Amino acid sequence: MRIVRFSTGDESPQFGVLASRRDQPSELVVAELDGGPYDGIALNGRTHAFADVRLLAPTLPTKVVAIGKNYADHAAEMGGDVPAVPIVFLKPSTSVTGPGQDIEYPGISDEVGYEGELAVVIGRMCRDVPAERVPEVIFGYTCANDVTARDLQRSEGQWGRAKGMDTFCPLGPWIETELDPSDLALTTTVNGELRQSGRTSQMVRGITELVVHVTAAMTLLPGDVILTGTPAGVGPLQVGDEVAVTVEGIGTLTNRVIKRG
Amino acid sequence: MRIVRFSTGDESPQFGVLASRRDQPSELVVAELDGGPYDGIALNGRTHAFADVRLLAPTLPTKVVAIGKNYADHAAEMGGDVPAVPIVFLKPSTSVTGPGQDIEYPGISDEVGYEGELAVVIGRMCRDVPAERVPEVIFGYTCANDVTARDLQRSEGQWGRAKGMDTFCPLGPWIETELDPSDLALTTTVNGELRQSGRTSQMVRGITELVVHVTAAMTLLPGDVILTGTPAGVGPLQVGDEVAVTVEGIGTLTNRVIKRG
Repeated sequence: MRIVRFSTGDESPQFGVLASRRDQPSELVVAELDGGPYDGIALNGRTHAFADVRLLAPTLPTKVVAIGKNYADHAAEMGGDVPAVPIVFLKPSTSVTGPGQDIEYPGISDEVGYEGELAVVIGRMCRDVPAERVPEVIFGYTCANDVTARDLQRSEGQWGRAKGMDTFCPLGPWIETELDPSDLALTTTVNGELRQSGRTSQMVRGITELVVHVTAAMTLLPGDVILTGTPAGVGPLQVGDEVAVTVEGIGTLTNRVIKRG
Repeated sequence: MRIVRFSTGDESPQFGVLASRRDQPSELVVAELDGGPYDGIALNGRTHAFADVRLLAPTLPTKVVAIGKNYADHAAEMGGDVPAVPIVFLKPSTSVTGPGQDIEYPGISDEVGYEGELAVVIGRMCRDVPAERVPEVIFGYTCANDVTARDLQRSEGQWGRAKGMDTFCPLGPWIETELDPSDLALTTTVNGELRQSGRTSQMVRGITELVVHVTAAMTLLPGDVILTGTPAGVGPLQVGDEVAVTVEGIGTLTNRVIKRG
């Protein structure tokens, strides 16, 4: 099932399910949910043509917990080995933006770059999750771009600003709830040119280990997100670029880069 | 004015103003607010004896933005110089706890320590705040303890887990809205013994510079918190310890350490 968050322009954002019309299977519709998706999927009976809705970030996380250097080839290109323990950092809720929304290139950086990633969306409040119960707390998966001001990342030590700026966490286009994430193709393109190409099977630590590791420290809430790391091929973005992250079985998250006003 | 958040046990948490009874000035009362404190202070007419309420964290931040090594004597005791640019990291909303609540000592650390700090509470949504407008976005000040798993801080590179664990951000006991924060005594005691003693005038970067620096990267929302760094004297906590952070003109934030269950 594909869960979207959307706006029709005249109402508050809502959650919905992306579906095909029974009578015209080639035509997509969005069926509105009665409330949020985490306590069970309840449709309220209203539907919209897909063309009439604007997709938003499919989740409103209270926090995004991200993992650094979780693909060996990316750790190598960053000039280091795979870390002995996972690198865990936070991106704030204010960094989240949606598919088709703009990434703002800030004046305080000269080197903003993309990092295409698979994102895990948490479905229930959880802490100290044992490995065998990880599937129970995962709601689904979406695409993410862990946008990074590479110059600030180098100069500031902790990555609170470098990775925490407004619009630096595009998520979307939707949450896929039925997916085996263990070996999916992950690609990032800039203006249509392939820049990153990896497979989720290349993660140093898999999703189960990451959920155990993160929740050993902190409670995750429904809608919270874990970013699972990026493969090799990171590089810069320029104002005007269109960056697209595609994860097999989910879809493509596309964003344009504008100058921050 | 002192803004509290409190519970009376039988209702949802509410915001209030701490005041003296007009007829008995020695007796404190809590006057309930109609809603939150950030859109103007409106009393709903109900009051409680101070002894009948349980204080909670006085704000529910969407994020806590913290500054590392912002007192030169603390930077020295950590074995380093004052950083060339401020170190900015995030503590999640799930790390926040209130006065009198327990700090949970987690099984994954053998070296949990205190860091007494002055906390700035933001009053309005803001980004790219120029220095001259910083006073407009500050709602008030409270005490904070930037509790840290020192061993994980050393071994994990980024501080997402070391400083982001549940209960690792006690805030309180209330928000003081009328305060000149430029030269306040700040002390931390453990079981009554003095461990940290500094003055906010010793900050390497002052509050105005920190608000400018943080909001150059990210939007802050009403209730969000900036932790301004800790003076020298950090040290370990043990299960059973009582740690108290006092900031002159605000009050004392006291928490006991328990074993995380």
